[in-house]
Amino acid sequence: MALQRGTGMSLILRLELDQSVAAFGQLTRAIGDAGGDIVAVDVIRVTKNTATRDVTVQAFDRDHADQIVQALTDLPGVHVVNVSDRTFLMHLGGKISIHPKIPVKNRDDLSRVYTPDVARVCTAIQEDPSKAFQLTIKRNMVAIVSDGTAVLGLGDIGPEAAIPVMEGKAMLFKQFADVDAFPICLDTKDTDEIVRIVKAIAPTFGGINLEDISSPRCFEIEDRLRAELDIPVFHDDQHGTAVVLLAGLLNAVKLVGKKLEDLRVVVVGIGAAGVACTKILLSAGVKNVIGVDRHGVLVRSEHYENPIWSWYADHTNPELVHGGLDEAISQADVFIGLSGPGVLTIDHVKKMAKDPIVFAMANPFPEIDPEEAEPYVRVLATGRSDYPNQINNVLCFPGIFRGALDCRASVINEEMKLAAARAIASIVTDDELHEQYIVPSVFNKKISRAVSLAVIDAAIATGVARRERSDYAQSN
Amino acid sequence: MALQRGTGMSLILRLELDQSVAAFGQLTRAIGDAGGDIVAVDVIRVTKNTATRDVTVQAFDRDHADQIVQALTDLPGVHVVNVSDRTFLMHLGGKISIHPKIPVKNRDDLSRVYTPDVARVCTAIQEDPSKAFQLTIKRNMVAIVSDGTAVLGLGDIGPEAAIPVMEGKAMLFKQFADVDAFPICLDTKDTDEIVRIVKAIAPTFGGINLEDISSPRCFEIEDRLRAELDIPVFHDDQHGTAVVLLAGLLNAVKLVGKKLEDLRVVVVGIGAAGVACTKILLSAGVKNVIGVDRHGVLVRSEHYENPIWSWYADHTNPELVHGGLDEAISQADVFIGLSGPGVLTIDHVKKMAKDPIVFAMANPFPEIDPEEAEPYVRVLATGRSDYPNQINNVLCFPGIFRGALDCRASVINEEMKLAAARAIASIVTDDELHEQYIVPSVFNKKISRAVSLAVIDAAIATGVARRERSDYAQSN
Repeated sequence: MALQRGTGMSLILRLELDQSVAAFGQLTRAIGDAGGDIVAVDVIRVTKNTATRDVTVQAFDRDHADQIVQALTDLPGVHVVNVSDRTFLMHLGGKISIHPKIPVKNRDDLSRVYTPDVARVCTAIQEDPSKAFQLTIKRNMVAIVSDGTAVLGLGDIGPEAAIPVMEGKAMLFKQFADVDAFPICLDTKDTDEIVRIVKAIAPTFGGINLEDISSPRCFEIEDRLRAELDIPVFHDDQHGTAVVLLAGLLNAVKLVGKKLEDLRVVVVGIGAAGVACTKILLSAGVKNVIGVDRHGVLVRSEHYENPIWSWYADHTNPELVHGGLDEAISQADVFIGLSGPGVLTIDHVKKMAKDPIVFAMANPFPEIDPEEAEPYVRVLATGRSDYPNQINNVLCFPGIFRGALDCRASVINEEMKLAAARAIASIVTDDELHEQYIVPSVFNKKISRAVSLAVIDAAIATGVARRERSDYAQSN
Repeated sequence: MALQRGTGMSLILRLELDQSVAAFGQLTRAIGDAGGDIVAVDVIRVTKNTATRDVTVQAFDRDHADQIVQALTDLPGVHVVNVSDRTFLMHLGGKISIHPKIPVKNRDDLSRVYTPDVARVCTAIQEDPSKAFQLTIKRNMVAIVSDGTAVLGLGDIGPEAAIPVMEGKAMLFKQFADVDAFPICLDTKDTDEIVRIVKAIAPTFGGINLEDISSPRCFEIEDRLRAELDIPVFHDDQHGTAVVLLAGLLNAVKLVGKKLEDLRVVVVGIGAAGVACTKILLSAGVKNVIGVDRHGVLVRSEHYENPIWSWYADHTNPELVHGGLDEAISQADVFIGLSGPGVLTIDHVKKMAKDPIVFAMANPFPEIDPEEAEPYVRVLATGRSDYPNQINNVLCFPGIFRGALDCRASVINEEMKLAAARAIASIVTDDELHEQYIVPSVFNKKISRAVSLAVIDAAIATGVARRERSDYAQSN
């Protein structure tokens, strides 16, 4: 079944064929027999007896790739010179670079962008530090800050290993919203230290995107930085997920004809993202949210060591449901999973209210197998790109920072997040709305502009914008 | 006299002319009468009675620019709509940006550079963190770290005001040696804190360029970071200046037919750069250096509060010269100034040995007026671009980091700096060598490659390279 295999990988095999022993046809047959798909063939070198080719082959996963290479190694007359992995090749030397916006061709250029003329610009900023927003990279630069403790599904892999994710994120910031972003991967897990460091490096940046920092430290780090910095601080794992979830939910309830305030919503997995999703649901008008974690339903009559769970219990579960998911799921309209595979069963779904809406967002394996669930749910969304309705933060973070930077917002507040969610939802028109299309594709070019404009309006309405729209309508 | 005026600035004046009152000729005449040079004229808009033009005018300095604007404002029929400064326009929004090396065009790209496929790259680095040098931006990324305490001649102007200088430096890194560099401007002046922060942000970087950090903190910060990090740490104000000075001196002594070991060298201004210049002179074989600061000649029989001065006195002035510059300069072969204007007089120069060599590097005003000094010195170098022999760090830092990154050096040691100095000096051939040409132009394209190759050889010879030349000869 599709879920059991990886999402695929491309190999580039450099193969030397002794043409007196083997023919190219035998080689392609061996790859086919091992289940590999040949994508491309490039001839590298031909001598009288040998031919060297680069053969690009698609495999399911690493084990499968190994099987293909083994099959070729076993073939007489074939020498496997080298095996390159296309993903690794794309990462060689990193995925982003720094570019001067204008070339330094001669002494006149040099004297303007560097000494001595740059001194006049420095002096202007010294006299009014807020001019850094106009005259430096601060205007468009976001720091992507991680300590590498909660990266993808890999956990605490350390700051070096986190860099490729942060670089990828920087690419998406640029590509989708023309935001410059730079990875800062920190060799410390100490909360106080992280707060101090981010404050100290803040002068160069117009915003801080916190990324892949483990719970519960991520809450304190974000709260303190928001209080102490005058630029937006946004933990994307929490708020990006929450915004896109809400966008999907807005369209899902429209589809089934229900209202937010009437919903019974069960959230499983009360970590960073679970808390943020719940908060945005409450802000959006949902009244009945029930949280479930390892120890069962969170209820305010219980005492929790984890202060986040205490807060959670106090603000949710108005009917004081006790027990576990079995109890909570009964007559629920919406299931939101941020936990792990297999948490939600078909029996659970059968106990939900009419037209069940399921967000099974565990990655890479959702809380319920999408194909098994399909006959029993009305709307299903996952975190995966190979099923419809992918809840993907890429829908949110580029546009939300674009808007925050353009209006020079001091924070990204709840109203701005709600506006972003509504803007994402609005990209799917009433005509297009469908069980399999509640959120737009990440490649839809309308998204980041719609999100940024909505975010700017919300920032101005809530008084956190430091730049009028007329200021940037001209210059951007 | 030229030294009394600024190095010039370009204004862009948007002028609306009421053609029934004034003619364009009157306007150009007014600019000329005020001493301005018209560089360009662009017509923006013409109506029946009015014409709007952007007129680019070269002025000497801000006061002169104000005089030109005033002359136009006083002219009947001319409305000065806007005055833009070309240098400021070049700084709008900052001077560098972040670019993805490959576009993210479709879901396949997205899955490779970001989730889910990036996880395999992360895991490979987790298993062997040194792979970050191959698979991330660490391979080619330098942090330009400043706390804004000693920026150009401006002093402690704060981290925001320092950003334009660091951006300019990042441009030069890229343009001259294809090194990616990113400005980190720190909102703290605390030595311990700066050391902690730079260590914590080091995972993303292959090298650290310390910049414009005031003395004596810069010494401790550099020493501690060098000891605690396994990537090169290089305070450019010290070592970049020292390397280029030595390059110039090597050619100057060749010209006058003296030997380094026979020289009597007087260094005035024993701050960060003065100490670094002295150290490299001693490493290169100079035996007799005499340091002079505010309190006079540094001599080991005296006690100094400043530990750097104590070190300095212990390692220089072998003849135990006492007194001030008047005493030290007698029969000196070389004067090296890192102090302020007017420190060196014509009388001083007359007391020097035959063929005086003078490095008057105070900026923007040298220790002696170059035009007054000219008849009395054999070789004169300054920090200015409008005289021959500019001692400019741009000759050094791009190539030295290029070499250090390519061979994955763990440090930039004394041998590597000496090699860089000799490489810079060698660009000037014996045929070209001349009193007015002891260092090459910063725009000479041979420099960074020559410097980087020399630095790599020195790194390999001293055992600090972590990559063989064959490794990168292929990939670069």
